[in-house]
Amino acid sequence: MNYIGKTVEIDFKNALKEDKIGGLILPSSTERVYIIKQKSGYNVGILKENIISIKEAKEKIKQIEIVKEKIIKQDNNKKKILICNIGGTIASKIDYTTGAVSAKFSAEDLLNLIPELKELANIETYTYGQIMSEDLKNKNWGEIANLVYSKYKDYDGIILTHGTDVLHYTSAVLSYLLDGIIIPVVIVGSQRSSDRPSADTTYNLLGAVKFIIESKKGGVFVSMHSSSGDTEIDIIAGTKARKLHSSRRDAFKSINLEPIAKVVFDLRDISKAKVKFSDSYKLLSSGELEKPGKLSDQVYLLKFFPGQDPKIIDYLGKEGYKIIILEGTGLGHVSRDFIPQIKKTKSVLFFMTTQTIYGRVNQNVYSRLREIKDAGVIGLEDMIAETALMKAKCVLGKYSKKEDIIREMITPKALDMGSRTE
Amino acid sequence: MNYIGKTVEIDFKNALKEDKIGGLILPSSTERVYIIKQKSGYNVGILKENIISIKEAKEKIKQIEIVKEKIIKQDNNKKKILICNIGGTIASKIDYTTGAVSAKFSAEDLLNLIPELKELANIETYTYGQIMSEDLKNKNWGEIANLVYSKYKDYDGIILTHGTDVLHYTSAVLSYLLDGIIIPVVIVGSQRSSDRPSADTTYNLLGAVKFIIESKKGGVFVSMHSSSGDTEIDIIAGTKARKLHSSRRDAFKSINLEPIAKVVFDLRDISKAKVKFSDSYKLLSSGELEKPGKLSDQVYLLKFFPGQDPKIIDYLGKEGYKIIILEGTGLGHVSRDFIPQIKKTKSVLFFMTTQTIYGRVNQNVYSRLREIKDAGVIGLEDMIAETALMKAKCVLGKYSKKEDIIREMITPKALDMGSRTE
Repeated sequence: MNYIGKTVEIDFKNALKEDKIGGLILPSSTERVYIIKQKSGYNVGILKENIISIKEAKEKIKQIEIVKEKIIKQDNNKKKILICNIGGTIASKIDYTTGAVSAKFSAEDLLNLIPELKELANIETYTYGQIMSEDLKNKNWGEIANLVYSKYKDYDGIILTHGTDVLHYTSAVLSYLLDGIIIPVVIVGSQRSSDRPSADTTYNLLGAVKFIIESKKGGVFVSMHSSSGDTEIDIIAGTKARKLHSSRRDAFKSINLEPIAKVVFDLRDISKAKVKFSDSYKLLSSGELEKPGKLSDQVYLLKFFPGQDPKIIDYLGKEGYKIIILEGTGLGHVSRDFIPQIKKTKSVLFFMTTQTIYGRVNQNVYSRLREIKDAGVIGLEDMIAETALMKAKCVLGKYSKKEDIIREMITPKALDMGSRTE
Repeated sequence: MNYIGKTVEIDFKNALKEDKIGGLILPSSTERVYIIKQKSGYNVGILKENIISIKEAKEKIKQIEIVKEKIIKQDNNKKKILICNIGGTIASKIDYTTGAVSAKFSAEDLLNLIPELKELANIETYTYGQIMSEDLKNKNWGEIANLVYSKYKDYDGIILTHGTDVLHYTSAVLSYLLDGIIIPVVIVGSQRSSDRPSADTTYNLLGAVKFIIESKKGGVFVSMHSSSGDTEIDIIAGTKARKLHSSRRDAFKSINLEPIAKVVFDLRDISKAKVKFSDSYKLLSSGELEKPGKLSDQVYLLKFFPGQDPKIIDYLGKEGYKIIILEGTGLGHVSRDFIPQIKKTKSVLFFMTTQTIYGRVNQNVYSRLREIKDAGVIGLEDMIAETALMKAKCVLGKYSKKEDIIREMITPKALDMGSRTE
């Protein structure tokens, strides 16, 4: 039966318990989820596989009823949060003339779209830009870090709304530039533009706000859906996040480390949301925050593939790159013919990560791995390749001596490298 | 309690039902699994989380008892399978003087290690080489394809034992070079060397043999563990496999498509293993097998990262590359400054895949994606980047006209591109 446009009552199960929800069914972009506009005005997605029963409600809801502005006053008992917009889908609208999506929302627009945010915290907004994330450069990351640095003392937490494509590159670089920060800085994206009924914006933002309210520790984090439904949000360490699906709402995974926390929602009453901190949360430690340093452009992320011509190393050396992050196969392999080329290119420091994404580099298992190590390539354990790229940008922005660079690269920071788990 | 060296009886649950197993507990390289040497002589791994109860057995097994050779005669009722060794961990031994692993086994050695294989089928062996997979080049892939082409009429199936690091690159290229083959060609790797108690060799090979016995369709497949335990093997389409963990036994995932089949083992009696074919199996179709074509070296797989200097495109064009497979972000993005460089490099054809691995490229959602499309970049839907690289090697080995190359690249083959699922 097609429920679109009908007011329904749904019994469903979520991670915590069985639950009920009512509202108007909106069109959904995925077959697997019902999008329900609740009387409160905000939308939730329920995975069809979690639904126990669905029936039409006696009392109908008209869409017009739910568009009413709520006026919330500042409340000194509430935490103070800054939402700063960088750009991306979360700040996008569909252009109905072309069907394409482009960045047009401000942080203030987002706040008006989700009035519940103001019930939870005293929220201020700021718009850095409306940048599609793939265009971000060192200059932008430096400006964003300095913006947070200049404002963090005035807030209990800062939320950055950001395009998802490059979100994990940004969360990694800010983890280093803002290492030691005492408040949570949470980067939030959305896989669907915020004016679409299936947008994941609402719960990704609510999850970030709830985490900021309850977290006693600072750091840089990502807040995105755990699954296609709206009941659970993952809070992921900035150095451990990676986008692993081009379109799903639960595209972001925490690699080689449990998410720092999960925010589990009661869909009828957002004030009842629970923040469940994991063992990873205990690993967070505060240091001393320094003014964000410079970022170097002399780092290249080189993905190896079998049959690749090792001449690329020579080219990158001549172009003046100082660090090459290799994305090798398995435990950290490149082909035999890369080894002499690596040895020859003495102006470059080589670090090894793995293109398997999950797991870690281990330079002791195979004879070949030892040869690669002997050629001077330094393994980065279970650090994600994209995180290694951003760490190298920071390290090279600050240090120039080989021994300093190597020491900084292999010193664990912001949970970027973990101890062996299996 | 520490059970290593003890003979035990275990009750456990697997995907099918509850089950029992007995044997000698061997040291395991992972905390999560017990490795049990059975009286029959072969080893199984049981996930601790699946164990209902474990107790010491009255009858003890000594390791010496289980090392006895079984002599199996040729049986005309059984299928005839060729196991051909390419190299890698599956054909490796630990060198106990250094602790490192290197390739030393032949296909015959492997067969002697797992005598049960001979009970299931008439098996012949052949050794192509002992190559660590990261060293494979076009020359090797061409030779392997021609080897299979020259022998396939004499067998019901061919198994290639292969290093895991580059296994998915090989399974992809053979899917194209052997497109239309009427027998299953199954590539089998092992994440642990075959002389170690925790080796996954036995069940990966048994899974391949069982699949060959029951499959009525041909093609190129991968046979690897579904989970850390030994109860289930995934048979994955050669164009859809990707290694997603550096060390786990279940490192290989079927991307954007259900595995073709699962082989579920009864650990006490391998003859009771069940091959469960999925809906993906129905999609397999036989064509006409041609003599394997040539492979081109003029293809480059270029991973994009934010802040990357677009000059790399100019370099690759000048080096004579004819196709660049871009690994963009999300739905297929590169930064704004890549677009003029792409337009300018007219000697190169550009195809887009996504670095999110899961999901598909969609060139119509964002204004930027349309600009990238207008610059001449052609989206490859849900094709994996590594598969696209290997497809381009094959297409460019056969065609030189731009329109032929584009047509061949975007024509689905060997399940490499699927229809939209969500």
